[in-house]
Amino acid sequence: MNMTRIPPRSGAAFRLLKGQFLEVIDPEGGQVSDLLAYNADDVRECLSNGRTFDYEETIRLSEGNRLWSNRSRPMLRIAHDTVGSHDFLLTPCSEDTFKHFYPDKPVHRGCFGNLAEALAPFGIEPDAIPCAFNIFMNVPVDQAGKIEVRPPTSKAGDVIRMQAEMDLVIGLTACSAYASNGGSFKPIDYRVLPDLPG
Amino acid sequence: MNMTRIPPRSGAAFRLLKGQFLEVIDPEGGQVSDLLAYNADDVRECLSNGRTFDYEETIRLSEGNRLWSNRSRPMLRIAHDTVGSHDFLLTPCSEDTFKHFYPDKPVHRGCFGNLAEALAPFGIEPDAIPCAFNIFMNVPVDQAGKIEVRPPTSKAGDVIRMQAEMDLVIGLTACSAYASNGGSFKPIDYRVLPDLPG
Repeated sequence: MNMTRIPPRSGAAFRLLKGQFLEVIDPEGGQVSDLLAYNADDVRECLSNGRTFDYEETIRLSEGNRLWSNRSRPMLRIAHDTVGSHDFLLTPCSEDTFKHFYPDKPVHRGCFGNLAEALAPFGIEPDAIPCAFNIFMNVPVDQAGKIEVRPPTSKAGDVIRMQAEMDLVIGLTACSAYASNGGSFKPIDYRVLPDLPG
Repeated sequence: MNMTRIPPRSGAAFRLLKGQFLEVIDPEGGQVSDLLAYNADDVRECLSNGRTFDYEETIRLSEGNRLWSNRSRPMLRIAHDTVGSHDFLLTPCSEDTFKHFYPDKPVHRGCFGNLAEALAPFGIEPDAIPCAFNIFMNVPVDQAGKIEVRPPTSKAGDVIRMQAEMDLVIGLTACSAYASNGGSFKPIDYRVLPDLPG
């Protein structure tokens, strides 16, 4: 499949079949992509940060880790990862987070609004949007538990490749928030690859 | 209101009106209680660990912090807390987590099954159970992100008091898992108090 570009501050949704790989690329560097996953046969089954933290026994997911559903089933396996810094603690940016964190800046519907629009044709409602797996997002947690959102460490061409462990509906964005990408809104590229050694 | 006891390895659900306080007590010490909250007027609005981490800017919630919903609204404010160690990363223990973590022990439906049964009369389905706020649960995260579940530090009589910021349906358990309470299954006490200075 050819590379598809997600324009700055927008989103996409598409099917990913069991065994296929999804490659998400940061074409310019320093950008975040929020990823959601739903069971294509029953969208009430979706990505769960809590189940993933439970089974992987870490909040830092990279090569070799799997992302789990709210029904305790693996959805995606991280096959390749040139960055190793992603976030699974935070929810997609939204009108409300813009008002809260950037009261002096224009309000944007954010990744939440972009995901809601892209996922609607698959029968997924806004309330069914859980915490996203925030690819390339750089969120250190200090020993007291305090969270900070820093610019991503990803460079142009950095990539994460994930293999589907069931038939999925994927939601994917080029992030809209100021903090997560250092104030520079950039595109995100992705492509779907057939089952191959990885 | 009198104290209500949740027997070991079981759960309860009840309404908590805006302004009322919920007090959760560890009567014997070393026990965990999984808490869920739903908007009583529309149960599609529920507790969100990600929104809470976003707005409170920490994964360690205690006195003064608020617990937020998936619609970016505060649901509960922590008014008093004698322990200061709770978990909001992990999902309720379930048949699947028992099979995964304790393959040689009898399978139990866990807090997940207990919450699902208690919440069913309020129209809440199992798939709508998010990450719980796991009161008194002791889950250190090291600098590499690795999670460990240790016995709670709570002593007999320790308490957390939370005030409702909207009309809620609450789900509450006395935890069923081995790791979270050091293998000793104990009860949890709770009571609802009217609006008072706190």
